Amino acid sequence: MRMLVLGGGRIGRVIALDLASDHDVTLVDSRTIDGLPNVEFLKRDIASLDLPAFCRDYDVVVGALPSALGYATLQQVIESGRPYCDISFMPEDARALSARARERGVCAVYDCGVAPGMSNLLAARGCSLMDTPQTVRIYVGGLPKTRRWPFQYKAGFAPFDVIEEYTRPARLKINGEIVVREALSEIELLDFDDVGTLEAFNTDGLRSLIETLPAPTVLEKTMRYPGHTELMRVLRDVGLFDTDPIAVGEAKVSPRDMLAELLFERWTFQPGEADLTVMRVMVEGTHLGKPASHRWDLHDRYDPQTGFTSMSRTTGFPAAIVARLLASKALKTPGVHPPEALAEMGVFDTLIEDLKKRGVDYIKR
Amino acid sequence: MRMLVLGGGRIGRVIALDLASDHDVTLVDSRTIDGLPNVEFLKRDIASLDLPAFCRDYDVVVGALPSALGYATLQQVIESGRPYCDISFMPEDARALSARARERGVCAVYDCGVAPGMSNLLAARGCSLMDTPQTVRIYVGGLPKTRRWPFQYKAGFAPFDVIEEYTRPARLKINGEIVVREALSEIELLDFDDVGTLEAFNTDGLRSLIETLPAPTVLEKTMRYPGHTELMRVLRDVGLFDTDPIAVGEAKVSPRDMLAELLFERWTFQPGEADLTVMRVMVEGTHLGKPASHRWDLHDRYDPQTGFTSMSRTTGFPAAIVARLLASKALKTPGVHPPEALAEMGVFDTLIEDLKKRGVDYIKR
Repeated sequence: MRMLVLGGGRIGRVIALDLASDHDVTLVDSRTIDGLPNVEFLKRDIASLDLPAFCRDYDVVVGALPSALGYATLQQVIESGRPYCDISFMPEDARALSARARERGVCAVYDCGVAPGMSNLLAARGCSLMDTPQTVRIYVGGLPKTRRWPFQYKAGFAPFDVIEEYTRPARLKINGEIVVREALSEIELLDFDDVGTLEAFNTDGLRSLIETLPAPTVLEKTMRYPGHTELMRVLRDVGLFDTDPIAVGEAKVSPRDMLAELLFERWTFQPGEADLTVMRVMVEGTHLGKPASHRWDLHDRYDPQTGFTSMSRTTGFPAAIVARLLASKALKTPGVHPPEALAEMGVFDTLIEDLKKRGVDYIKR
Repeated sequence: MRMLVLGGGRIGRVIALDLASDHDVTLVDSRTIDGLPNVEFLKRDIASLDLPAFCRDYDVVVGALPSALGYATLQQVIESGRPYCDISFMPEDARALSARARERGVCAVYDCGVAPGMSNLLAARGCSLMDTPQTVRIYVGGLPKTRRWPFQYKAGFAPFDVIEEYTRPARLKINGEIVVREALSEIELLDFDDVGTLEAFNTDGLRSLIETLPAPTVLEKTMRYPGHTELMRVLRDVGLFDTDPIAVGEAKVSPRDMLAELLFERWTFQPGEADLTVMRVMVEGTHLGKPASHRWDLHDRYDPQTGFTSMSRTTGFPAAIVARLLASKALKTPGVHPPEALAEMGVFDTLIEDLKKRGVDYIKR
């Protein structure tokens, strides 16, 4: 089949290489991307392409573009009539385009990475395995393998987005009510084999799950090595996360911009630097009148053989597998679907097994 | 007697009021200072005064001016021929003026506060009480009574000087060698009655003591509530204490200046806000062939009756008492003396007792 991958960043490249093992793959990016065997590369500015026409030459389209381009690209791919899966983490609600996708007979899956992504699928799966799901808890963190004082942290994505995550109020659902908690609040400690103890705190990561899951209580927390959260709370409290410029002598400067200058270079993974991804999804409730619970743990690591970071593996592989499911028509229901919708579409076991073949092992307990 | 106090800041006012109980006191400041009963106030710019002539109308002069004015003022008071004591914490080595003071028959004491000041006197006293002093350790901290997250700190003096204290390499003497340690390093925990556990770390506070004390090992550490030091180390490590401007967008800004804008207002004591001063001076060695040790503890608090902060009490009262000793000629040896020199001048017991009368109690253990 002919697969089109839009965006050749770290994750887009993983998706393209994965698909290239048994498909014809074309990768489009405005930058020059090389070193991808068996992938046809086209240097094009996505914004200047006539995407509805361009996509028609392919059987399946995968989006791995910056979040700001996500929604407009989804809209245009729907017009092409081709199936689509996307990991852009767009700020808009993609489901607003679902009616148009149904009209065009297009099956599109968005938020198709690890969290959002596999976290949604596992949460929905857990709920579907019991009569009365009660509580869904998702814990997820991308971390450097090596812990260095003082922050013990590097950012698997743009550091500015990390600071955004540490400031935006977190929405969660408690006993059927949507409540708002301060970011970095309500720290819990969790133990993971090999990784040890991590701390988890509220961030605004639930997106569609806050509405779609049948459980009355749904929360997601971000995980870091213990101690990180307190330091972030201190920097935030001092005002260093503030974006409004303040007067410093003659100059006017945004404290967050200054912090970025001082901090972000050391928060960036160097080539070949090992990261890891840790996730736990827990669903509790009752089934056949008895307490029931399901839990999945992920502990994925940088792969020195391929040079793929754990963040790109855990995010890119689900998208590549969903692209294959779209190509084989195992997924074909028209509409714009968040990943939790896949739990009802008979592809759960395939996804889990195909991820395991790639070393991304969601262990059920 | 006629006493002249130069500088009407927080400490100068405490000195003036203290002396006014039994002397004629004149206070000079460029700002308007009121509310000081029995004190004659003169609004004058010190820099424009002919100090050698002006001081001749008084019996004793006390300096409580900003550190930048300390040395030049000392020089001019020596020319007036009047005895002088000073708490300005001048950066220069005042002893360079000692020869001239001897020529003029002037007895001048500098660094005449708590630390430097009483710490010097107690350290020298401890050494004088044994044949072979070995180790002198001075621990001192000015703290807010109320501990607020995250820093549990307010600055009893200019916050910029606090950051300077946290960055300047600390000089200490170990086994007779002068060694340099990073500021904020080598944290120790110490327990104090009422106050609880404090942490102590290296700062560059020994000044003359590094040369004058007979003990081969001499160190001084600053104390804070536990946790403060780690946060300061983190801010320093991020680069927020750096003074060289960095580019932030179009602007060039010193990170320390930005931090000052964000942090220093909340590091400033509000009127009536209670502070405390904690000090421990320990001298160990041998006497008559046996191990010997002497220790003094100070735990002083804000005085709600007078509204005097602990920092101004513990700094101002020693200067006022030394001024009295100069007036009575109990102190009269010509020269410029650091406080440790007073231990040999027969005034130790008077100082300790007169401080105790004012509630500043150095408890010997």
